[in-house]
Amino acid sequence: MGMVGGSLDAFIGAVHRRAAVLDNEIELVCGSFSSNPEKSRQTGHALYLPPNRVYDTFEDMILREKELPEGERMDFVTIVTPNHMHFAPAKMALENGFHVVCDKPMTLNLAEARELKRIVEETGLLFCLTHNYTGYPMVKEARAMVKAGKLGKIRKVIVEYPQGWLAQLVEATGQKQASWRTDPAKSGAVGGVGDIGTHAENLAEYITGLKITELCADLTIFVEGRLLDDDANMLLRFDNGAKGLLTNSQIANGEENPFSIRVYGEFGGLEWHQMEPNTLIYKTNEAGARLIRTGVGDLSPEAQANTRLPAGHPEAFLEAFANIYTAFAQTLRARLNGTEPDPIRLDFPGVEEGVRGMAFIDTVVASDKSDQKWTKFIE
Amino acid sequence: MGMVGGSLDAFIGAVHRRAAVLDNEIELVCGSFSSNPEKSRQTGHALYLPPNRVYDTFEDMILREKELPEGERMDFVTIVTPNHMHFAPAKMALENGFHVVCDKPMTLNLAEARELKRIVEETGLLFCLTHNYTGYPMVKEARAMVKAGKLGKIRKVIVEYPQGWLAQLVEATGQKQASWRTDPAKSGAVGGVGDIGTHAENLAEYITGLKITELCADLTIFVEGRLLDDDANMLLRFDNGAKGLLTNSQIANGEENPFSIRVYGEFGGLEWHQMEPNTLIYKTNEAGARLIRTGVGDLSPEAQANTRLPAGHPEAFLEAFANIYTAFAQTLRARLNGTEPDPIRLDFPGVEEGVRGMAFIDTVVASDKSDQKWTKFIE
Amino acid sequence: MGMVGGSLDAFIGAVHRRAAVLDNEIELVCGSFSSNPEKSRQTGHALYLPPNRVYDTFEDMILREKELPEGERMDFVTIVTPNHMHFAPAKMALENGFHVVCDKPMTLNLAEARELKRIVEETGLLFCLTHNYTGYPMVKEARAMVKAGKLGKIRKVIVEYPQGWLAQLVEATGQKQASWRTDPAKSGAVGGVGDIGTHAENLAEYITGLKITELCADLTIFVEGRLLDDDANMLLRFDNGAKGLLTNSQIANGEENPFSIRVYGEFGGLEWHQMEPNTLIYKTNEAGARLIRTGVGDLSPEAQANTRLPAGHPEAFLEAFANIYTAFAQTLRARLNGTEPDPIRLDFPGVEEGVRGMAFIDTVVASDKSDQKWTKFIE
Amino acid sequence: MGMVGGSLDAFIGAVHRRAAVLDNEIELVCGSFSSNPEKSRQTGHALYLPPNRVYDTFEDMILREKELPEGERMDFVTIVTPNHMHFAPAKMALENGFHVVCDKPMTLNLAEARELKRIVEETGLLFCLTHNYTGYPMVKEARAMVKAGKLGKIRKVIVEYPQGWLAQLVEATGQKQASWRTDPAKSGAVGGVGDIGTHAENLAEYITGLKITELCADLTIFVEGRLLDDDANMLLRFDNGAKGLLTNSQIANGEENPFSIRVYGEFGGLEWHQMEPNTLIYKTNEAGARLIRTGVGDLSPEAQANTRLPAGHPEAFLEAFANIYTAFAQTLRARLNGTEPDPIRLDFPGVEEGVRGMAFIDTVVASDKSDQKWTKFIE
Repeated sequence: MGMVGGSLDAFIGAVHRRAAVLDNEIELVCGSFSSNPEKSRQTGHALYLPPNRVYDTFEDMILREKELPEGERMDFVTIVTPNHMHFAPAKMALENGFHVVCDKPMTLNLAEARELKRIVEETGLLFCLTHNYTGYPMVKEARAMVKAGKLGKIRKVIVEYPQGWLAQLVEATGQKQASWRTDPAKSGAVGGVGDIGTHAENLAEYITGLKITELCADLTIFVEGRLLDDDANMLLRFDNGAKGLLTNSQIANGEENPFSIRVYGEFGGLEWHQMEPNTLIYKTNEAGARLIRTGVGDLSPEAQANTRLPAGHPEAFLEAFANIYTAFAQTLRARLNGTEPDPIRLDFPGVEEGVRGMAFIDTVVASDKSDQKWTKFIE
Repeated sequence: MGMVGGSLDAFIGAVHRRAAVLDNEIELVCGSFSSNPEKSRQTGHALYLPPNRVYDTFEDMILREKELPEGERMDFVTIVTPNHMHFAPAKMALENGFHVVCDKPMTLNLAEARELKRIVEETGLLFCLTHNYTGYPMVKEARAMVKAGKLGKIRKVIVEYPQGWLAQLVEATGQKQASWRTDPAKSGAVGGVGDIGTHAENLAEYITGLKITELCADLTIFVEGRLLDDDANMLLRFDNGAKGLLTNSQIANGEENPFSIRVYGEFGGLEWHQMEPNTLIYKTNEAGARLIRTGVGDLSPEAQANTRLPAGHPEAFLEAFANIYTAFAQTLRARLNGTEPDPIRLDFPGVEEGVRGMAFIDTVVASDKSDQKWTKFIE
Repeated sequence: MGMVGGSLDAFIGAVHRRAAVLDNEIELVCGSFSSNPEKSRQTGHALYLPPNRVYDTFEDMILREKELPEGERMDFVTIVTPNHMHFAPAKMALENGFHVVCDKPMTLNLAEARELKRIVEETGLLFCLTHNYTGYPMVKEARAMVKAGKLGKIRKVIVEYPQGWLAQLVEATGQKQASWRTDPAKSGAVGGVGDIGTHAENLAEYITGLKITELCADLTIFVEGRLLDDDANMLLRFDNGAKGLLTNSQIANGEENPFSIRVYGEFGGLEWHQMEPNTLIYKTNEAGARLIRTGVGDLSPEAQANTRLPAGHPEAFLEAFANIYTAFAQTLRARLNGTEPDPIRLDFPGVEEGVRGMAFIDTVVASDKSDQKWTKFIE
Repeated sequence: MGMVGGSLDAFIGAVHRRAAVLDNEIELVCGSFSSNPEKSRQTGHALYLPPNRVYDTFEDMILREKELPEGERMDFVTIVTPNHMHFAPAKMALENGFHVVCDKPMTLNLAEARELKRIVEETGLLFCLTHNYTGYPMVKEARAMVKAGKLGKIRKVIVEYPQGWLAQLVEATGQKQASWRTDPAKSGAVGGVGDIGTHAENLAEYITGLKITELCADLTIFVEGRLLDDDANMLLRFDNGAKGLLTNSQIANGEENPFSIRVYGEFGGLEWHQMEPNTLIYKTNEAGARLIRTGVGDLSPEAQANTRLPAGHPEAFLEAFANIYTAFAQTLRARLNGTEPDPIRLDFPGVEEGVRGMAFIDTVVASDKSDQKWTKFIE
């Protein structure tokens, strides 16, 4: 694995590195960790990389790794830069024969996303988008239960992603995470909707297997001086007639990261909270609530394959993130070995989900500006 | 207290009776418990009322009680019939000099509500609408905290009232609670929105002190054969610029009655759940979550006045309902005694809240039918 | 109902009054509310009692009520004084033909308890001890599940009653509740063990149907200047070979009243928390945890008979207390009417439980003083 | 790092491997994974180790690695075998100049533990015992709060470690985890007390900084045919006069792994649950409960140093385990570099804790056999 971005002061780079190595399937062999070469070298040093595998630019990395013998050179590139710096390295990596893992949202805009999809299809290489929340065993279980029909026809979906950390103008203090996320040049057309709203959209569609067909959005910038939305409320409609609510916020003062989803069908309901990720609450009018728990009882093969520890030994954010990486790595290994990949490991988010996320963003922006109640989801 | 409605098989009648007597301030002295005189008499007998104080019709009750000497006759009428039978007895009671307690929503439609408001103002009599959830000590505390500025300017409100009991066509089985609630002749223009959505609207405005100015609603009838909405999703806008979400549902399969509200301001957030009513969660980015609990520490006088037991001895639905009755009763007693009422006890919902609830219903129906995103709250 | 004790500043008197009237089966008709006649009269006035039914002493009350015609005079006496004032009024009431409800622990010592048991048996009158926690629907459900064999043979019981309110020498401030509870003359040989430990003993035996056969206790007075135990830890052994832990504390700083019990059998476990009383957690290795909830699904007749409201409308402390009163009242009414009582309503704690509680106290004191590990439960 | 034990079908080996590499400070370079050489080789292959670094026996590994040049050879041995196979490799590793990480409990008996302590002191090498639960940030915070005096003098400790997985005679099915844990030849004098009771003892002493001075234990074998205790209840006394309860169980049917501790002092209480490890509940009579959360607000340097992710991104079992490894690795690195170790990283459990754990086991066994209430903790 070669990394683009993820210098020492970046949050998400360290997450990717830990997630990648957790299951002993992936090794970091090189990187171009910053647009500042000095910072890149410091990061490489701190990570115990040999100096000759630390590059000044991602272009250097891709071109020079390509020249190394197979087996020695990196097998894939992982891209953990801010949104505006996803497309170029992804495109170049693919065009030079490297598989790609990329942080979400996939690109700066929908046009880039569509172009990237074209390239992935053309090259036939593997592309993984780290919608990490779909890596949790209880999310897998929820999806499996819906698919198995345990809830009957889905009627209602409530998905929420509230955070409080931008309740004040934090970007004015120079805090790195806040700065790029609220900067249109780096984040794109939206702030919170891109950063966390896309997770909500992705999770709702992943668990239910439904597609949003139209929505009605109300975006707000609550903090004076901010340039991008810090709060969003939406009504949703799905392709089977189900209705929904989606809200994401960065001004929900006091909230850490309680991403959650509730799904109600004809026969029962499901509820999952990211901050207590090993519990899936299954409710029916007839029998009340049952706590489905990671590692307990008869779970789907998908949930089991994404669990490392016995019941009651909690697995959490990094383990779920690692599940995405491991699925990608095992699929990649099968391809490198010329074997059939384990079908369960094929379930990682890819370029389709990336395009859909960018289309979601554009749809939300259009709806927010419209006086019409419903805006069709951009195909 | 004389009761209209509330025969033995009615749910809410027994609730009102228990709530009324809990604090030893109110005595049930007479009633007209059903449109079926035989049923009314059976109910009166089961309640140990003397037969001559059990009436065949509410008209009888009002006219004959009026002839009894003061001190012996009922002081007020409480109306616990389905919605379509609120207006007539309320009007007649007021016009004959009786104070009134009335279940919510106040009337069958907005016109009746406005007319009732006129009569209350004209007669100068007391009118109490049992929006019982505002009687909880932790709801009082939440309102007091917002009023005291602890949250700063309110930015976002999420209020939810999901239930699952109508996930199937229960009314087809003849179940009494389901039948009248889904019958337009008895419930009015809406189903769930009137039954529980009005609680949500009332609680949001009560706690925040804000008014909804416009909304965007999406109503659904999910269960085939049903005549009124069983699910509602709405975007809200408030008069100070705050945004909000309101959802109520009766098809949220597996949900009992988890009415909840979250309010976020500049400086912090509040969260309250009706099913664990003695906890108010207060969150700030700086200090995390604190559990404010009934009976613990420095609480507002409003919360304390509505608490009977020491910390950790839970009070619940009937006690909160009783707080509404006791506030009304103490205000009435002050009036009867010619003394000043305790200002804290003046805080019970009245005819204003009733008109607002009916206007909310009409606004929701209008918005649901409209293609425009925003519909102004009907004044 | 005539009340002994329970003046306006007493906590438990108001609890009994509210619990007694909640179900419209009992009316307070007279009282001797304090050893201070003036205070008794003030209380009677505040409760809207006619002055001639407010007595200076319990002896007066019993003798003069006895002279009133049947139907007018009180049917039973309820005793809500501190422990040292239970025996005398209970004895006199029974000897004059009045049924009795009595707060717990039943008497000041075991000798009084045994004497009272003798009198109850001799007179054949009804005697109810308000071990109120056994009135909760989910406690009834737990007992029914154990009885039905759902847990198999019981192996382990953990029962805890921690409170924090006596973490400092509160009695030195003159606080009434603290003062009598820490005064050996009024409380008896123990402090916390009598006040709350007896609830724990009673609940463990009530739910499991087992009897404690021996125990090993370690009592402590943590707060300097206090005269009675404010903390107790015990190992338990039951008559079927089950083992257990019991702890009660009044110095568990920050705890409100989280009385709880866990019971484990061959096939599953149960967990109940008084502060969230409408949930009973049922766990098995095979299926994980299920939340059994008041009002949801197939519950035992015992749970259903003790529930007033639909699912999700929480019932709490006063309602559970009322369940004890209503069971007693319906059993009494059946006797007065010469009919067979509803067997479900016969399930209220009585003089047997009272004797057992006092024997528990003596056993704990003996064990605490002993160097031997095990002390046999005093028969 | 070279590993002893931890073949593919072992639970704890994989845990150690993941924990060791998570922070990119440690690399697995060799191993002797099983007493069965074939199994060892399969494991090494699956872990992508070069065949020449996979050894048939731990003796081989130690002797042959010693011959490798510094920088290439392993820096330390990690021992993840059943208890009876801890002492020999630890001793040999130390005597050949290798630092040691060892799973708990440290040895098969107290004599071995004392001997190991002697060797560690003699060699001056680093020794780390993986009492992993002390690696959680909120456990660090709890310890820091007690040390800072926020709770005042500690009065009461309740520590519980219930599990349900051995509620039936699982060892009869040949299940590997159950088999060695219930076999006296591999586990030692106790079953559950050694496996999980030692965690409870260690955590209680770690957080409070107190030492248990005497205890009163009641051990049980509930499952017929089992050879070692599957349930334990104990009264504790600490060196400052505090009292306590400790219970561990493997027959608490339906429990996963809800290890928990509550500590009460003069001024407040703390509560921590392993299954929701990012929350530390801090309670006072005055202010109720505050949820102290990983990553939120002003936390101790110890808690912060052991946290990787922002608030609300849960870290769990493997991360806490990794904190122990990383503390050890950074201390070892400082020693190898000849620099001063970060004092915060010196806080990992070592040989002292190991001896104390084995003394705890012997004390518990002695107490269980004794008729005396109190047995002094063996020094």
